[in-house]
Amino acid sequence: MTRDPSAQPRSVEDHAGLVARMLEPLSDEPAMESVPLDRALGRVTAGEVRSEVDLPLFRNAQMDGYAVRAADVRSVPVALEVSGDIPAGHTSPVSLIPGTALRIMTGAPVPTGADAIVPVEDTELVLGRDDDLSGAIVEIRRPRERGEYVRERGSDVRRGDVLLAAATRLAPRHLAALAAAGVETVSVRSRLRVGILTSGTELVAGGKPGFGQVYDANGIALAALVEEAGAIVSVRASSGDDPEAFARILDDALHRSDLIITSGGISKGAYEVVREVLLPRGADVTTVAMQPGGPQATAVVGGMPVFAFPGNPVSTQVSFIVFLRGPLRAAAGLPELKPREVALTEPLRSVPGRRQFLRGLLDGEGAVVPVSGPSSHLVAGMARADVLIDVPAEVEALQSGAAVTVWTL
Amino acid sequence: MTRDPSAQPRSVEDHAGLVARMLEPLSDEPAMESVPLDRALGRVTAGEVRSEVDLPLFRNAQMDGYAVRAADVRSVPVALEVSGDIPAGHTSPVSLIPGTALRIMTGAPVPTGADAIVPVEDTELVLGRDDDLSGAIVEIRRPRERGEYVRERGSDVRRGDVLLAAATRLAPRHLAALAAAGVETVSVRSRLRVGILTSGTELVAGGKPGFGQVYDANGIALAALVEEAGAIVSVRASSGDDPEAFARILDDALHRSDLIITSGGISKGAYEVVREVLLPRGADVTTVAMQPGGPQATAVVGGMPVFAFPGNPVSTQVSFIVFLRGPLRAAAGLPELKPREVALTEPLRSVPGRRQFLRGLLDGEGAVVPVSGPSSHLVAGMARADVLIDVPAEVEALQSGAAVTVWTL
Repeated sequence: MTRDPSAQPRSVEDHAGLVARMLEPLSDEPAMESVPLDRALGRVTAGEVRSEVDLPLFRNAQMDGYAVRAADVRSVPVALEVSGDIPAGHTSPVSLIPGTALRIMTGAPVPTGADAIVPVEDTELVLGRDDDLSGAIVEIRRPRERGEYVRERGSDVRRGDVLLAAATRLAPRHLAALAAAGVETVSVRSRLRVGILTSGTELVAGGKPGFGQVYDANGIALAALVEEAGAIVSVRASSGDDPEAFARILDDALHRSDLIITSGGISKGAYEVVREVLLPRGADVTTVAMQPGGPQATAVVGGMPVFAFPGNPVSTQVSFIVFLRGPLRAAAGLPELKPREVALTEPLRSVPGRRQFLRGLLDGEGAVVPVSGPSSHLVAGMARADVLIDVPAEVEALQSGAAVTVWTL
Repeated sequence: MTRDPSAQPRSVEDHAGLVARMLEPLSDEPAMESVPLDRALGRVTAGEVRSEVDLPLFRNAQMDGYAVRAADVRSVPVALEVSGDIPAGHTSPVSLIPGTALRIMTGAPVPTGADAIVPVEDTELVLGRDDDLSGAIVEIRRPRERGEYVRERGSDVRRGDVLLAAATRLAPRHLAALAAAGVETVSVRSRLRVGILTSGTELVAGGKPGFGQVYDANGIALAALVEEAGAIVSVRASSGDDPEAFARILDDALHRSDLIITSGGISKGAYEVVREVLLPRGADVTTVAMQPGGPQATAVVGGMPVFAFPGNPVSTQVSFIVFLRGPLRAAAGLPELKPREVALTEPLRSVPGRRQFLRGLLDGEGAVVPVSGPSSHLVAGMARADVLIDVPAEVEALQSGAAVTVWTL
């Protein structure tokens, strides 16, 4: 429980760089897996996807109407014999007898010999009925050029062409294109598997907390943050202050995860279980010049990166957002959530020497109002915020109207 | 297959209003359900959530250090006997003997009689050791006011106070606040159950398409669009052009859904199965002055709204985005995706009399480039777009640099 007053706290930038480097191997060569289209929404393509077919698959009609030779309808009006009917889904090829017309439905294959579709609006059946075309005669009232209302095979995409670029986050329109091209499964980046271990004797395991006990807010918060960042939770476990018990859940989690996040147990007090277990395994336990979230530790255990955050629920969430969210989103192929500048609606004070991440709420005009206090236990207060206000270490006070950087929560 | 040339097409605004009114009953009184926190991410609270506890649950230490009476540390340095140790999670109340100090860890209950915490940095053990406090003496080097580094019970939220507002979309920070307050399940809006029925003899049921057949792109596209809009897919089925078969899948879907979407089979050609089944059930079959997506139908069958979209894959997706996405997101409590104005990077032409929804791609500078063609079969082309360019019905041409409204895909 002694402190080394000579130790310089590490800057947020330096610690963020270290965390990002630890995750680089997972990001640079992401694992991939094949998923069926109906489970692929929101996933990110592992590589580019080329079409194995022409789209349209065959030359087809763009309108309901009559398939003709453009040469036969050059002078209008002209009456043509209706020599047959081609509904959509017609499954055998048809040829057009020159000088006649074939009734055709949108999407149906254009018959051999036909080179234009006359939309039904520009025609009239002068003999016969819609439901009985035997011996029918259609009058064509408007000429059509060769190719009009004909969708050529491959006019949307050609076999071998790129259908989707690599790193495409799959939206409905991408799934539609894949389905149209007959693709049934798509190769996407695997989601990183994240083990979440919360620690602290004060955490109640279930039921009502006794005297001195609290509910665990960090397990659910980290799980939700991990999921939002495009990864999945492999293990969620909690331990008290017994190092052996913590070591057991850590070893178990390491076998099933790509990285581990812990909360609590790393400050310099007594009974700091995470620190006690990770230090002999080569952990880098440090203080980052930030509030909340000062105590931080990282380790590589069995080749697996471990990120140890402080246990106050606001500290845990801010640590994730500042250090892990960006690298995890990058590994998942999700777009960066860039901090941006907005105006402060009221003055605020900050502790010098530490970069502060205060809670703020954007008002209707895009300015930010500080909400709740700076203290790291104000977990309900944080729920009222929608951004973190990032106050540089050297700043002690900001005036109303000052520009501040905010991070979206 | 005859057309009524006198029929005025309906405007997009009028048809959108009609669709929205059909969904109002589902939106105004949303059903609700209770879900555990670990399945609540992204769900929307049905009502406000009040805290059933004070947070913090008890008065506790904000720092590792020593619990004292502020009156005993007014003149420093002062040496105090260490009369005990309170780790976090300490489960029985402790009283401070006046004139002594109790070692305390962050989060541990502040002993009765103590009114300040002196952080460990401002102290030194002059007798005894960190791991053996019997007979220890601590020197306090800095005075502390009453209440310093003490987190008062209820200082974050008080029992009975609003923890989360109604219609909060649950993010990690909200789940953390709920968990901290001991909430295990939360009441959220139920997701609307949407049945999706695609139709057309040309759709291949499985395997490779034969001559004249195509893969079904609309089932997966509508399912993904529905999911993105905060609803769930209750049924996904496909039928050919047999009205009896379509009526069967429709009746089945009606029993398990809050609303139905169909694609295909509503234009005025022959073999239009959706139209044939819905017309006797009172459908409103119409033409909307838009491209793509002109043929539209709506019906109320057994009290259930049915929205029938045209079958071309681009038409189906545009119909959903223009007519259903907004009302479904509103019913789900999701934020509106407002169309916005951007500049065109190149001139474009449009068909007069119909509002065009062309495919566009935002460039790095936030201007929009038209991509792919206007034709409704260009499903692969649509996958390259990220917005719809909304060209008003009366506009025939736009210059490069003109302001256009775009809808996010």
